[in-house]
Amino acid sequence: MTSGNNNVLVYGGKGALGSALVAYLQKQQMRVVSVDIMPNEDCKDNVLVDPSMDLQPQGYDIEKKVGQVLGEEKLSAIYCVAGGWAGGNANDDDMLKNAELMIKQSLYTSLISARLAAKFLAPNGLVVLTGAKASLGGTSFMMGYGATKAAVHQLTQSMAAANNGLPENTTTLAIAPVTLDTPMNRKFMADADFTTWTSLEFVCELLHEWSTAAADRPESGSIVQLITKDNETRCEV
Amino acid sequence: MTSGNNNVLVYGGKGALGSALVAYLQKQQMRVVSVDIMPNEDCKDNVLVDPSMDLQPQGYDIEKKVGQVLGEEKLSAIYCVAGGWAGGNANDDDMLKNAELMIKQSLYTSLISARLAAKFLAPNGLVVLTGAKASLGGTSFMMGYGATKAAVHQLTQSMAAANNGLPENTTTLAIAPVTLDTPMNRKFMADADFTTWTSLEFVCELLHEWSTAAADRPESGSIVQLITKDNETRCEV
Repeated sequence: MTSGNNNVLVYGGKGALGSALVAYLQKQQMRVVSVDIMPNEDCKDNVLVDPSMDLQPQGYDIEKKVGQVLGEEKLSAIYCVAGGWAGGNANDDDMLKNAELMIKQSLYTSLISARLAAKFLAPNGLVVLTGAKASLGGTSFMMGYGATKAAVHQLTQSMAAANNGLPENTTTLAIAPVTLDTPMNRKFMADADFTTWTSLEFVCELLHEWSTAAADRPESGSIVQLITKDNETRCEV
Repeated sequence: MTSGNNNVLVYGGKGALGSALVAYLQKQQMRVVSVDIMPNEDCKDNVLVDPSMDLQPQGYDIEKKVGQVLGEEKLSAIYCVAGGWAGGNANDDDMLKNAELMIKQSLYTSLISARLAAKFLAPNGLVVLTGAKASLGGTSFMMGYGATKAAVHQLTQSMAAANNGLPENTTTLAIAPVTLDTPMNRKFMADADFTTWTSLEFVCELLHEWSTAAADRPESGSIVQLITKDNETRCEV
């Protein structure tokens, strides 16, 4: 490892999108640090998360471990693709439990990613957070999920504003997919129209391209919607 | 107490805005239930919160206690004015701690308010959540606060959408103030221009008016900005 430019971090590197992204980036000769609750066995550098910890000590713990892995090196990109899905409207007895889970899986991880960027990102680096197109409006049947993803969108804007505490020329973007074509989604929505789902390959290529071709990045702070129709995906800012 | 129409709940009834609101509503002959960490001594019905609990058990605990206070009665309005302020950008060592506090003070309380509405609000009732005008854009110097308030805004939209699990014809609104004229804000921003701060009296009158004059309510789901200039406040949707 000779240059910080080859180091990237995937937060949620054991998830469906995260695993695909780790594999894709390693194929591009990137050195990938996976941060997740479970190790990604395909990845040499794993940082394990204890999600039961409060946010600040959890963040400190991850910062310390990432620092040990990186030594004096910096990261060129941080991809936060951690998250999950759980629903519920106001009358659903599990709404609050699911909301707390969404907050921990999506918002805590995004906030910790902001900290990791402040500490470990090289100048001109990239942070990608994971939002959701649905959260650009109301999401009554998944109140906690929607609110949490809206928070991630706004954090993306904060991380693009002046005095954000991030290294010089950091670009922060959120991807806002509709439905990703994952095994879990295939299992639980077996009757859906898969031609409107976004392939993990598309997302992996896009995220890698943004890190290597800075000129092709959307403006920092953008919420990049991934709209798939007839198996073709376009980005809309 | 003979009619549910006279019962309202103030979540955060011991805070600066909450205390003013409890006093104002009681002067209008409303029966007020205060929900807060500390009792509001001016209020007969106090429901105490244990903020150290996880979201779901915390919600259940509050639901149970509110049910005990109300008996068979319903509420005509739920005002969630709980919250606080703590800042920090990505490079601030306390950002995560402050973000978690904001999530618990503003988002947990708003989500629990949605549950309380599902359980205890009468038809044609009102829910008011507390957002922040700043969160309509990025807020780099208060990342956790801004993200949390954006989540509250989106929850407001979810609670106005179809299939929200709320009683018939519920109106859900968020107020989005800039700065409220509270003793704490006077203390910590002593050099600020107070003529741009919104008086608690204005907010109390507005919130009471929305509950009594349903026709004057903005459309459900609205984020109502409170813009004050030369000590005059106007609402902008």
